[in-house]
Amino acid sequence: MSRRAVVLMSGGLDSTTTCAWAREQGYTVYALSVDYGQRHRVELERARYLAGRLGVAEHRVVRVDLRAIGGSALTAEELAVPKDRTPEELTTGIPITYVPARNTLLLALALGYAETIGAFDIFIGANVLDYSGYPDCRPEFLQAFETLAQLATQAGVEGRGRFRIHAPLLHLTKADIIREAYRLGVEVHQTLSCYDPDAAGRACGHCDACLLRQKGFAEAGLVDPTEYQSEVSPAERNLTVTGRP
Amino acid sequence: MSRRAVVLMSGGLDSTTTCAWAREQGYTVYALSVDYGQRHRVELERARYLAGRLGVAEHRVVRVDLRAIGGSALTAEELAVPKDRTPEELTTGIPITYVPARNTLLLALALGYAETIGAFDIFIGANVLDYSGYPDCRPEFLQAFETLAQLATQAGVEGRGRFRIHAPLLHLTKADIIREAYRLGVEVHQTLSCYDPDAAGRACGHCDACLLRQKGFAEAGLVDPTEYQSEVSPAERNLTVTGRP
Repeated sequence: MSRRAVVLMSGGLDSTTTCAWAREQGYTVYALSVDYGQRHRVELERARYLAGRLGVAEHRVVRVDLRAIGGSALTAEELAVPKDRTPEELTTGIPITYVPARNTLLLALALGYAETIGAFDIFIGANVLDYSGYPDCRPEFLQAFETLAQLATQAGVEGRGRFRIHAPLLHLTKADIIREAYRLGVEVHQTLSCYDPDAAGRACGHCDACLLRQKGFAEAGLVDPTEYQSEVSPAERNLTVTGRP
Repeated sequence: MSRRAVVLMSGGLDSTTTCAWAREQGYTVYALSVDYGQRHRVELERARYLAGRLGVAEHRVVRVDLRAIGGSALTAEELAVPKDRTPEELTTGIPITYVPARNTLLLALALGYAETIGAFDIFIGANVLDYSGYPDCRPEFLQAFETLAQLATQAGVEGRGRFRIHAPLLHLTKADIIREAYRLGVEVHQTLSCYDPDAAGRACGHCDACLLRQKGFAEAGLVDPTEYQSEVSPAERNLTVTGRP
């Protein structure tokens, strides 16, 4: 019998690639999307579509209204998502799109789900390179959560298994992740990384997530197939990003 | 300036006493109630009333729909809350009312709130004696979360302060907690511990939480002022519990 795993899946490039990776490793995947108040319905539909295409056993959505807490441009309505930041700005400090304790919360929900279905393996698309400013994307954080998981649960305390937090993309560049996504057969154009998509699920092309994703395609030497709100063809966009004709 | 603290507050006896304790220590309290799908509206109203009476600076409610995950009699509709369990059953094993990873989730939300308001102190009404079956009520769990909190947050990583998880009731008996509640001026009769209250907020009198609470009043030699669904006077009830005329 294949082992069960919970995969945190937003429908973005990283989490979808992580899901495909877990499937390739032979896990029976229980996908979990967390709707923490920042999402358009179309994003959850995208996550559901991609999860289905990857052959997950189940896909659940938990709604958490983080707007009640605020503190991030992704959840507080009075804060705007920053656009067109320079490469230096992108890699310095912790951005306003940081959601306080976000991965702690996502992993807590994944842990509850895992315990409910008898799984001990949890996958998260955390990445330390592109999100160097996010404290909860670092290996020491993930290790601390693994320790906590064992102490926090009935399954852990009773010694029925050892919880593992897997972050297979942790040390990959965005270009590496894109190549891995294609290798694994992910429908990359369906993944939605943007922090500020429109109601049709088209990316803004200017937020940090869009810029990092565009840079990844450029560095991988691949045309970006993402559908953006401004009607520019993928080939034209790639030229703009690389700055070369 | 007094220090800010986040207090997890369900409106039950333990969390309300914890809130009063934090206030006595001089903290400016930001109370957080988490509505994880098991609650009647009346319970949140009770939490709001008690928080107001204790002079909190703010009271927020975050809704998390844990019914999407299930796994507990408190969140899965197909599981019934156990009633009238024996003292031995009450203190043996992990009950079906255990919510997978519940305190991990509550503390994750409290941590996000704390970071948003610049607080480093988080209070939780965890208790190791009455809830010996709950893995996430043990000191080692709380210590592991404290370690995690420091690694998980911008505020922690930047060294702006040291997160502390306070559980002032951790080693108290229910009788001690009741005495402490009265000392601190808590309106004990307004606190609602029951796992299965009716829409008017009256306790069932038969679930584990009601039985432990009744035992606490009996051991403290105090009349139980709780309003129960069956119309028995407090004095009569106490006789039943203690078994003495």
